[in-house]
Amino acid sequence: MPFNDKKGMQIALEEAKKGYEEGGVPIGGALISEDGTVLGRGHNMRFQKDSAILHGEMSVLENAGRLKGSVYKNCTMYTTLSPCHMCSGACLMYGIKRVVLGENVNFVGAEALLRSEGVEVVNLNDPECKALMKKFIDERPEDWFEDIGE
Amino acid sequence: MPFNDKKGMQIALEEAKKGYEEGGVPIGGALISEDGTVLGRGHNMRFQKDSAILHGEMSVLENAGRLKGSVYKNCTMYTTLSPCHMCSGACLMYGIKRVVLGENVNFVGAEALLRSEGVEVVNLNDPECKALMKKFIDERPEDWFEDIGE
Repeated sequence: MPFNDKKGMQIALEEAKKGYEEGGVPIGGALISEDGTVLGRGHNMRFQKDSAILHGEMSVLENAGRLKGSVYKNCTMYTTLSPCHMCSGACLMYGIKRVVLGENVNFVGAEALLRSEGVEVVNLNDPECKALMKKFIDERPEDWFEDIGE
Repeated sequence: MPFNDKKGMQIALEEAKKGYEEGGVPIGGALISEDGTVLGRGHNMRFQKDSAILHGEMSVLENAGRLKGSVYKNCTMYTTLSPCHMCSGACLMYGIKRVVLGENVNFVGAEALLRSEGVEVVNLNDPECKALMKKFIDERPEDWFEDIGE
């Protein structure tokens, strides 16, 4: 895998672990430009901020701040888990052309939609991402269902 | 149009006007359950909060707070403007089965996606929604492009 994908997923996983330690849903992400600049990083804040919209990728976009539309176009969104419809939609709205996910064993998001809209989707199938997410779901199934609207 | 749709859009439009008065993007919305309870209302907060994710519908969901997944399933999302991919994706993630929009002349969002996923989409084609949004786009085109990632 290219260096940046490894680096990007490391940052996303660091964020996911931080979320877990804070008592939150352990999903993290990072928005990284073609030249390797980390424009934003973050993790799910549902429980930390009582938020219905701060999924991992949404936190990343919020933490990146207000950017010109053109900035997103050469970025990759890294996320430890397959992005749900909301987060996939946010990537589509901003025209992010590449999404790298840690795994889609614990949850399958809107990957098909992303691909159908021309987004490159790469699944790293990362064992550490899978194990952390499985641990959370096993420990707190109700909180996980709430986070995905089930 | 049923009473609740008229009432729902009135609230959404009040929110949009509030946003305009605050110097923001004038898009508002409301989440209303089948029995007419307003679970959340809000408006775009990009400029008020320097937010990259607080579109009108996202503000509504955030203001509604953390709810059980089952609560969303019998709700209608009212929004003064056709919902973009992010906001449509948020509705899909939470399983909101009905979206009522004020207009889609100034912007066409992911209505086709919503319909393809079984969501009922109703366009009220409201003159006041159209006029307010057109006024904002004419006054601040760059800010509008930023808000939709262009």
